[in-house]
Amino acid sequence: MISMNTKKYTLTATCPDQPGLISSITSCIAASGGNILNLAQQTSVDIDTFFCRIEFAVINEFAEKEFAKSFEILAKKFTMKWNVYSFDKKQRMAVMVSKTSHCLYEVLLKHQDGFLHCDIPIIISNHPDLCKIATEFKIPFFQVDTEKGKQAYEADVQRLLEQYNIDIVCLARYMQILSPEFTRKWENKIINIHHGFLPAFKGAKPYHQAWHKGVKIIGATAHFANEDLDQGPIIFQDVKRVKDTQSIKEFVAMGRDIEREVLVEGLKRYFNHNIFIYNGRTFIIES
Amino acid sequence: MISMNTKKYTLTATCPDQPGLISSITSCIAASGGNILNLAQQTSVDIDTFFCRIEFAVINEFAEKEFAKSFEILAKKFTMKWNVYSFDKKQRMAVMVSKTSHCLYEVLLKHQDGFLHCDIPIIISNHPDLCKIATEFKIPFFQVDTEKGKQAYEADVQRLLEQYNIDIVCLARYMQILSPEFTRKWENKIINIHHGFLPAFKGAKPYHQAWHKGVKIIGATAHFANEDLDQGPIIFQDVKRVKDTQSIKEFVAMGRDIEREVLVEGLKRYFNHNIFIYNGRTFIIES
Amino acid sequence: MISMNTKKYTLTATCPDQPGLISSITSCIAASGGNILNLAQQTSVDIDTFFCRIEFAVINEFAEKEFAKSFEILAKKFTMKWNVYSFDKKQRMAVMVSKTSHCLYEVLLKHQDGFLHCDIPIIISNHPDLCKIATEFKIPFFQVDTEKGKQAYEADVQRLLEQYNIDIVCLARYMQILSPEFTRKWENKIINIHHGFLPAFKGAKPYHQAWHKGVKIIGATAHFANEDLDQGPIIFQDVKRVKDTQSIKEFVAMGRDIEREVLVEGLKRYFNHNIFIYNGRTFIIES
Amino acid sequence: MISMNTKKYTLTATCPDQPGLISSITSCIAASGGNILNLAQQTSVDIDTFFCRIEFAVINEFAEKEFAKSFEILAKKFTMKWNVYSFDKKQRMAVMVSKTSHCLYEVLLKHQDGFLHCDIPIIISNHPDLCKIATEFKIPFFQVDTEKGKQAYEADVQRLLEQYNIDIVCLARYMQILSPEFTRKWENKIINIHHGFLPAFKGAKPYHQAWHKGVKIIGATAHFANEDLDQGPIIFQDVKRVKDTQSIKEFVAMGRDIEREVLVEGLKRYFNHNIFIYNGRTFIIES
Repeated sequence: MISMNTKKYTLTATCPDQPGLISSITSCIAASGGNILNLAQQTSVDIDTFFCRIEFAVINEFAEKEFAKSFEILAKKFTMKWNVYSFDKKQRMAVMVSKTSHCLYEVLLKHQDGFLHCDIPIIISNHPDLCKIATEFKIPFFQVDTEKGKQAYEADVQRLLEQYNIDIVCLARYMQILSPEFTRKWENKIINIHHGFLPAFKGAKPYHQAWHKGVKIIGATAHFANEDLDQGPIIFQDVKRVKDTQSIKEFVAMGRDIEREVLVEGLKRYFNHNIFIYNGRTFIIES
Repeated sequence: MISMNTKKYTLTATCPDQPGLISSITSCIAASGGNILNLAQQTSVDIDTFFCRIEFAVINEFAEKEFAKSFEILAKKFTMKWNVYSFDKKQRMAVMVSKTSHCLYEVLLKHQDGFLHCDIPIIISNHPDLCKIATEFKIPFFQVDTEKGKQAYEADVQRLLEQYNIDIVCLARYMQILSPEFTRKWENKIINIHHGFLPAFKGAKPYHQAWHKGVKIIGATAHFANEDLDQGPIIFQDVKRVKDTQSIKEFVAMGRDIEREVLVEGLKRYFNHNIFIYNGRTFIIES
Repeated sequence: MISMNTKKYTLTATCPDQPGLISSITSCIAASGGNILNLAQQTSVDIDTFFCRIEFAVINEFAEKEFAKSFEILAKKFTMKWNVYSFDKKQRMAVMVSKTSHCLYEVLLKHQDGFLHCDIPIIISNHPDLCKIATEFKIPFFQVDTEKGKQAYEADVQRLLEQYNIDIVCLARYMQILSPEFTRKWENKIINIHHGFLPAFKGAKPYHQAWHKGVKIIGATAHFANEDLDQGPIIFQDVKRVKDTQSIKEFVAMGRDIEREVLVEGLKRYFNHNIFIYNGRTFIIES
Repeated sequence: MISMNTKKYTLTATCPDQPGLISSITSCIAASGGNILNLAQQTSVDIDTFFCRIEFAVINEFAEKEFAKSFEILAKKFTMKWNVYSFDKKQRMAVMVSKTSHCLYEVLLKHQDGFLHCDIPIIISNHPDLCKIATEFKIPFFQVDTEKGKQAYEADVQRLLEQYNIDIVCLARYMQILSPEFTRKWENKIINIHHGFLPAFKGAKPYHQAWHKGVKIIGATAHFANEDLDQGPIIFQDVKRVKDTQSIKEFVAMGRDIEREVLVEGLKRYFNHNIFIYNGRTFIIES
């Protein structure tokens, strides 16, 4: 049981696999007064790499900096990449949309239900259509003008993101390709929902592609956006079986349900610190 | 209820969609003394095409040739492609294998259970390993010598297929690429199981590819083999969710279960005449 | 292609299986000038019963009464139960809710998307909480007072349903048991979503029951409400795999996603006339 | 990397949740020279209970008894139930069958593939039918005579189990109810496959029950057999969607595929020591 005056942290750590990792890490946490609530550790044998995600609780006077200092000694010894996140410090997410509402609705409803541990201070769009929904949920809505050229308009977006102290961007069916400059600046900080089962069906009209290929199962993919269109690290995927005589229009409609679930499941894993990135792909360590 | 002295037929027909198709077809069957047991009709609106699969029963004196003649008049009127198959005339399938047993076992066990409406007069392999299983199931096993060059060895295969009056070839994890000449000769008569969720992960080592890409769901695909490797029309697919820290070896093991089920489900649809091919893809019309 | 001045109908018919059914039915439709768009026919061999659902189009001057008269002759001959529904005449659905919003939101959003072919003229609740959502979607919201006793309050509900010409009632997580008198009056006209995988886990707190039993998969069920609590004919079900150490609270949260999808899938089948009832259970005939 | 002269152990431990568990356990393992390969720890918040499964490797001279002694001190302190299993000591499983072959085949094939970490020294049946398969796989087959009365025949079974040093019994579609005396003697040591999605459809003919109820999804359940028929702790379950007009016979055929997969997945979890039992249900802690 966690009493009221405790604080919760999540630690993530990854390094080459070797003996003694778990015991060293857990001892370091214990020595700093942390009580482990939940530990998930897995080793990927194909790359001999250790991944670890630990939730721990401390009483109020926990010294974050002291902990960081003592953990850093460990990290050096094991060539470890690591992070520690305070549960109290919510990340701030901007949602970018165009005209389609199902993903935006899902993000906002699931956020309302407490499923997504973040703040949503702003919604940005290249179309006015979804302003009404932003208003319903009492979130500021900004429409940017894509007509003025990619560079100028992305500068507007960047300014908004900075102004609102945004940590992470969610592309909730945002139908505009971002420039390499922009995605590089926000590397592994932009989560996109692609309406196809990647790596198949990259690019435009994935349901049309799927229909023409005659696949029997369609899907959607939440992934980090990088400069290679629809090629960034995959975070979550799901699928549904289709019938060959369903129309492309029906694929699109079914796809909407997959997309919205996949997107919020991907976001949840981000805010819960389940995602590790290694060599261009993710490793999701679920507790 | 079908009495003992009835015969069962399956009719498949496809043509551009237009009014009056069902009524014309069912009237023609009725006029020939056929009693419809099961009718599945679907229209693909994106290509305005009608697909129809009908099972019907007739009493013994049904005149197949007479029926064909009267149906052909209809077919011409509607520019219809059609076929009628007698349930009594089982197709003859050759199974081609290499060293991996799980698909062969599945095909033979499911055939034994009556799940696959066909005869299996012969198993062909480029390795001796699975001869033992063929013996268990009392099916002649032939080992072909791939060392003598593709042309010569495929001629041996062709000779066997002809000698045993084979209608359809099943590649049950047969690890040798067939020549374009061979696949053209057996167009839409070779069913392969690919251990990847096509169209992603064509070619060799699809589980390795999937692992490196970091997909969250893996699958397998039963498809017709044609001269473009792993590009022929897809018949059936299924998938399983994987964990990122599962090893490639574990992917391979899980994949085996998907492959064997997908292969026999694909074969079943073939022998039940559920498969229509249109513009390089299949339309599966299930009853 | 259906031109603008055509009308669409759906015919459903069921009777003991016997020769000549399809041909008789399709001929009758053709004779009345109907053009079959889609025909789904299936026979349940365990009860020797024929089920058929046909969509057909007619030009404007189609005489519904004439058709009914001629079809009735057929129906008598085959002891057939049948119905014909005009696509133009949408059913009117009342949604009944309590405090939980996810199912109501889903019904309204999917209705907005055109997924549910009905009108929703009214929302009835025993709590004020969801009035806000009704307002957003511009649908009249009525709060009934359950304190006044079941008989009096159900009379209020009945009056509202009559006043608004309601054809069908959707219980979208409505947390009040209806009286046998009420469910009998609305037999097979009340669709409920139960948050358990029926027939297991009837009654209250199904996720608690599921957790205590240690099942590995949880689900939800859309069914017709009748006087036996959670025992009415099942329309649609879906499931999700759970982990044993997930909390009951997490089961409830996951369950919400299943419930909302299962409910709208069940409603869709109702409005599309896919549902046949036979001997206390449904047969869903999908086209 | 585990060198050749290491030994692998699995430790399972469960107790009321409290601070310091992980750190104490991992320190104890480290102090005994163990290197943790894999640690899975989860807390069930609804019962405030900690579950932990750890794989660790030691060099050859690891003193099992010393370790047990030092761990027992810890266990007492935390009121812990625990076990440690050597990877080298395979459990010995008897398979009991009747006439149906699909589950037996699956167990033997998966065992052959290395999927089940156990020995199978004996197959026991109340019918002669599957002797042939036992012979193929070179496993002694014993037919017991159920005609002589439950007590006498169960005594024969017991004698065989003792004679072959059996640790665990797998009922692979064994169609005879065991006496309470027998199941009590082998408590949580008999794994049964039930061809229904428990807790629904207990007892005989579950597919018939499912069909009559009109459920839309059928399943199978691997569970420990206890004296309450089909009520023992559930280990694994899986399901498939069915069509209402599929026959009961088709349900049975589809069910076979579910049963065989569910049974071996259940067995795998047993041999991998993933199963904890708490208050009549299991908690599966997967690594």
